Amino acid sequence: MKKLTALLLALMMALSLTGMVAAEDAKEAKYVFFFVGDGMGSPQITATRYFLGTVNNPDAPFPVPAELSFTTFKSGGLMTTYDSTSFCPDSASTASSMASGEKTLSGVINYDVNLERQFKPITEYAKAAGKKIGIISSVSIDHATPAAFYAKVPHRSAYYDIAVQGLTGDTIDLIGGGGYKQPTGKEKDKKDVFEIAKENGFTFINDNDAIRNLKPEDGERILMIAPDLAGSDAMQYEVDRRRINAEGGDSLSLADFTKSAINYLKDNEEGFFMMIEGGKLDWACHANDAVTTMYETIALSDAVQVAVDFAKEHPDETLIVVTGDHETGGLTIGFATTWYDTFFNYLDNQNVSYEDFDKRVAKMREDGVSFEDAMAVVEECYGMSMEEGKELSLIASEIARMKDAYTMSMLPKAQRVIGEQESFLYGGYEPFTVTSAHILNNKAGLAYTSYAHTGLQIPVYAEGVGAENFLGFFDNTDVFFSFMSAMGLTPDNVEAAAK
Amino acid sequence: MKKLTALLLALMMALSLTGMVAAEDAKEAKYVFFFVGDGMGSPQITATRYFLGTVNNPDAPFPVPAELSFTTFKSGGLMTTYDSTSFCPDSASTASSMASGEKTLSGVINYDVNLERQFKPITEYAKAAGKKIGIISSVSIDHATPAAFYAKVPHRSAYYDIAVQGLTGDTIDLIGGGGYKQPTGKEKDKKDVFEIAKENGFTFINDNDAIRNLKPEDGERILMIAPDLAGSDAMQYEVDRRRINAEGGDSLSLADFTKSAINYLKDNEEGFFMMIEGGKLDWACHANDAVTTMYETIALSDAVQVAVDFAKEHPDETLIVVTGDHETGGLTIGFATTWYDTFFNYLDNQNVSYEDFDKRVAKMREDGVSFEDAMAVVEECYGMSMEEGKELSLIASEIARMKDAYTMSMLPKAQRVIGEQESFLYGGYEPFTVTSAHILNNKAGLAYTSYAHTGLQIPVYAEGVGAENFLGFFDNTDVFFSFMSAMGLTPDNVEAAAK
Repeated sequence: MKKLTALLLALMMALSLTGMVAAEDAKEAKYVFFFVGDGMGSPQITATRYFLGTVNNPDAPFPVPAELSFTTFKSGGLMTTYDSTSFCPDSASTASSMASGEKTLSGVINYDVNLERQFKPITEYAKAAGKKIGIISSVSIDHATPAAFYAKVPHRSAYYDIAVQGLTGDTIDLIGGGGYKQPTGKEKDKKDVFEIAKENGFTFINDNDAIRNLKPEDGERILMIAPDLAGSDAMQYEVDRRRINAEGGDSLSLADFTKSAINYLKDNEEGFFMMIEGGKLDWACHANDAVTTMYETIALSDAVQVAVDFAKEHPDETLIVVTGDHETGGLTIGFATTWYDTFFNYLDNQNVSYEDFDKRVAKMREDGVSFEDAMAVVEECYGMSMEEGKELSLIASEIARMKDAYTMSMLPKAQRVIGEQESFLYGGYEPFTVTSAHILNNKAGLAYTSYAHTGLQIPVYAEGVGAENFLGFFDNTDVFFSFMSAMGLTPDNVEAAAK
Repeated sequence: MKKLTALLLALMMALSLTGMVAAEDAKEAKYVFFFVGDGMGSPQITATRYFLGTVNNPDAPFPVPAELSFTTFKSGGLMTTYDSTSFCPDSASTASSMASGEKTLSGVINYDVNLERQFKPITEYAKAAGKKIGIISSVSIDHATPAAFYAKVPHRSAYYDIAVQGLTGDTIDLIGGGGYKQPTGKEKDKKDVFEIAKENGFTFINDNDAIRNLKPEDGERILMIAPDLAGSDAMQYEVDRRRINAEGGDSLSLADFTKSAINYLKDNEEGFFMMIEGGKLDWACHANDAVTTMYETIALSDAVQVAVDFAKEHPDETLIVVTGDHETGGLTIGFATTWYDTFFNYLDNQNVSYEDFDKRVAKMREDGVSFEDAMAVVEECYGMSMEEGKELSLIASEIARMKDAYTMSMLPKAQRVIGEQESFLYGGYEPFTVTSAHILNNKAGLAYTSYAHTGLQIPVYAEGVGAENFLGFFDNTDVFFSFMSAMGLTPDNVEAAAK
């Protein structure tokens, strides 16, 4: 990558010397979008393409992969994500590495491995260069990934400190999506972050229409949070959001937030740097819920499409980069009993997230429903049936697994005995829910191997001004330097840059 | 990718117009190496890096990834591999796509989906342009991947036809590595392929020293086969080869064959095109044998190193491309019970391939050994022990799995009842062997999900003249066009090129 970039630069300099190209024509990215799908590796992206291609082309004689908004980007490469704790890293260290160009321990945000020296994130450089800064996440905005773009804390669990740093610092112009996990601190004894936001010039917006119609005049700085937050102060899962809206509801998407953020930030001479995270993708993978994972990938793709549309209006000024911070769950496209086949069409039967189904399981437990009645809800939500001769009829061994999971799920949590086998089978998730996902995944030819993050390389997709900085094979720390180059900025620490 | 290449070309043309660069300075690759790790996806490569980094740095405070010879290549990208049958393709179709630039059905070599029109592989273009052609594989040289670079058959199982086409056609200058699966045809009633080789000007070499010392004077065309073939007329597994050589044996590596092929082919005005396959990597993944997989990846890396060394002597003339044809086994780095940890050091205890261990299991069955004695062999070969307090002590549930597997493995194959559960657990492999691999993999934090090929995107690593043709995201059919561009060649079918 570096070689090619050097070649290009040399050629451009030569042209410049001949007077054919003015030196200032070496473009710098004015509008920079960084989309992060938390837990989104190559398997998640490819599975989503093959899922959409299959359900949208039911009569095609050959396999048809669909394109996502960013899979048509021609530039990009593959990066390693290991951190200073493990080859299977966490979101705090990996986001810090991409934001600030250095490795650190799992759990740490913008501190070195000794928890002494602070890192300086790309957003501070961009802000100093006159850009506006926007941070959007579908999970709570004090979560590790967004935090790495505005906070410095020894551990990601310092939610309140993270929130306060974002609101009291002068980096952020707009922040939004999910809410705050601990708005008054862990012990609920601190000053409310919404008050701190107000004191620091933030206008708080918590209404769908106001978010949709956001204008620069709406305030000096913006804090906008979806009014219909789901669990963990995060936005709704895309699969649930679509069902909610189809039933007449009004739930905002990551694309809606992205559109509003652009409208608010774009009128600025030096442009903007925006980090937009599809954060729940990771959670769906932790829960081994492939369908919910793929809808989260689609939600991220839809948000990227908003940036692609903006780039069409600003073709020589915009850079869009899309990646994941690590892979979650060890998702693969291929299962022991489906061999060389896949049945992505089966996945179209699932219409709820694991989070939503968990609520239904809690209700079953409360109501003491029978296994047969519980399986009727499984059929409604996942399409899998105990009756023979249906598209997704369960075989005896699958029914036995569902029965075991049902038995445990009907117990109050305190009464469940979790041995090594249960830990392997359920990973701490609601047994009836995760077993439904496992069986549906496997029938479709998909499988997860883990409930945690994995060590895979992650693809980075890039398009626009400076996209050539993201070509080939590199480490996640290089992402910082590539963004800096694309924006024409120089790191304070030249040694770090030279590494 | 294409955009960037176009930009480079435009810049170079502009420079050429200004007289600063002569048009002929647009370099074409004279020496072209195409290394294919069959079944080698990103997980296989990354796992091998992390395995070597771990065992070579036992005292490192942080995770250390090792580099393979090609993981330092800066150029490259990620390609899709689906074929016209499935998202989980086979080696015949994928090799045909890379060799000839078109999609086809699983099992088909250089024929279209209707089995009517033949494809023209890159080797024919390269040969017509004056290059010498070399084909090396660690599996039998009539196998699907090598075959796609010299044969055209409606199905890959036509081993004899494939062999004859290679020997009677005028494309191949050197072929070697593994042997022929059906040298006298399926019914053993055809003319011996070694006789056909001789009639067509091939000198047959079957001796280690003669292979090592191969010179252009040794013959007009060369057929060289390792004298110590293992199962399926393939070369030894690298993990076994290293043990054999450590015990005083002399077994050639893929690197040895690569070195000899270079020495034989290099003295040619137009250079060469060589396809070198690490074919057994795929088989090890089918068998879910992670350690053997990683040693095969190392063997491929060692062969690439030979090309890298050659490129240092011919820096402005050499192109090296390394990829896989598809991923096999659904390997991931992360397992349900190891969470965010990996224990790559555990894998250093395995010193045999599944193929070698299968032979030991056959002996156990013959001798009627007890479970305890069988487990002593497991400890010797995989380091896993039934005793408590050892590095790789088995827990009760693991011992139970080994016992079930032992019980089935001690039965004559005809007496085994293979139901859905056994098929899931053993995938048709020797139960005692594959269960040993599964348990060791999982203890180390690795897992496979399948015994077949998967649908993942595959990384392509490129270095040298024309490497910029392999940047970004593309399909396996683009590999053909990228090689053509790198060599300055034009496809006959311009429509195909324009797609």
